[in-house]
Amino acid sequence: MSDHCLHLQAIARVISPYREKFGIPRQAGLVEAACGWLEMAPEFARPEAFEGLEGFERIWVIFGFHACEGRYRLRVRPPRLGGNREVGVFASRSPFRPNNLGLSLLGLEGIEHADGRLRLRVSGVDLLHDTPVYDIKPYLPYADAHPGAASGFAAQPPSPVLAVHFGEMAEVVLRERPALRELIAQTLALDPRPAYRKGRDRRRYGMRIEGFDVRWRVEGDHAEVETIVPVGLDDAPGLSASD
Amino acid sequence: MSDHCLHLQAIARVISPYREKFGIPRQAGLVEAACGWLEMAPEFARPEAFEGLEGFERIWVIFGFHACEGRYRLRVRPPRLGGNREVGVFASRSPFRPNNLGLSLLGLEGIEHADGRLRLRVSGVDLLHDTPVYDIKPYLPYADAHPGAASGFAAQPPSPVLAVHFGEMAEVVLRERPALRELIAQTLALDPRPAYRKGRDRRRYGMRIEGFDVRWRVEGDHAEVETIVPVGLDDAPGLSASD
Repeated sequence: MSDHCLHLQAIARVISPYREKFGIPRQAGLVEAACGWLEMAPEFARPEAFEGLEGFERIWVIFGFHACEGRYRLRVRPPRLGGNREVGVFASRSPFRPNNLGLSLLGLEGIEHADGRLRLRVSGVDLLHDTPVYDIKPYLPYADAHPGAASGFAAQPPSPVLAVHFGEMAEVVLRERPALRELIAQTLALDPRPAYRKGRDRRRYGMRIEGFDVRWRVEGDHAEVETIVPVGLDDAPGLSASD
Repeated sequence: MSDHCLHLQAIARVISPYREKFGIPRQAGLVEAACGWLEMAPEFARPEAFEGLEGFERIWVIFGFHACEGRYRLRVRPPRLGGNREVGVFASRSPFRPNNLGLSLLGLEGIEHADGRLRLRVSGVDLLHDTPVYDIKPYLPYADAHPGAASGFAAQPPSPVLAVHFGEMAEVVLRERPALRELIAQTLALDPRPAYRKGRDRRRYGMRIEGFDVRWRVEGDHAEVETIVPVGLDDAPGLSASD
């Protein structure tokens, strides 16, 4: 049975504010302010392939955890469980799984077609920049929505746990960038530190969001953003052009 | 970008009552009585890989539409729209899509491990027998359930439209098979005929469910099941043994 293999070709790639793994929200939709694009490969940059999709509010994206490709574990330690209790990989959404396939439900904010390119504007992104996309499907509430389904150790969404303060140097950069401020605030509020670090922890963390290097640390119950430094030209001109 | 390819290996195969494409419900969960198994490949028949999954009521299955492999269309005619209006393939769940990947939300009824085999008992199956499975993930209502999401032309579930009557010869076979009766009744109630056939239609239809060939026709507002004939040994001994 396991001799049935399938060869997948990326139909799109993700243009995401998250330029490195650290800090990415642990499920889609947790950070609504995380907006990006699905940039279709030239072969699929055809408006007729999307006709009717504009009537749907959310879309499923099947993608590859390309930064974990070829690696899997049978048991994982979900951050939900404090990072010290193991569960089976198939009871988790861990990227370290056979076939490294991911599934995210994103908000569909718009479909743009110009100059032979076709891009979907999406929100609630939990995807690394440049992630390869293998399928896009409409969300069908009558088949997909089961709000009351029992869900073991993941019954409640992770709540924002940190208040986020911006220091003076950070404020200078954010002054004319309200969307970036909101994105950083929502992302850090979820406390992206590894579970085993939570508690007393004086270290400085850095994460790359869009074209910025964000430096922060945790003080008691809040995250203090110290600096936000532009790190050269963005490699996703499409994003900066319309954001 | 489209040069990013992924090579998938089946981690399981589906043991389904649906032995041919005709008659399969058009989404998962429409026929709750459609029960089957996900039979894990030997490499993944390891209980530790499933620990914690028993607390989840539903699971996502990412699979391959293996009977349509390598074929896609940019525009499709969903049965929802009567089979005569086209939409883009990405606005549909059609199997004729790039990469031929499918996504189904199934009920998880149990996990069995014995003699080195591991199988998940699933309900609400909309999968062809022998379908290759590439991933299994827990359903997380906080991320996956959006009952109010706008969903264009697929806002309502397809309703059962036919009453189902069993003729005398069918009744003989069903006498001690209440589960099979329920499965056939729920499946035919949704009217699996091609959309363009609906209306006046005197032809006889046949479909294979489990080890039976089911023959029926439509009379006005009901389906009349004329014969149910066993068709030799079932090639899924696991199913018949526990069903």
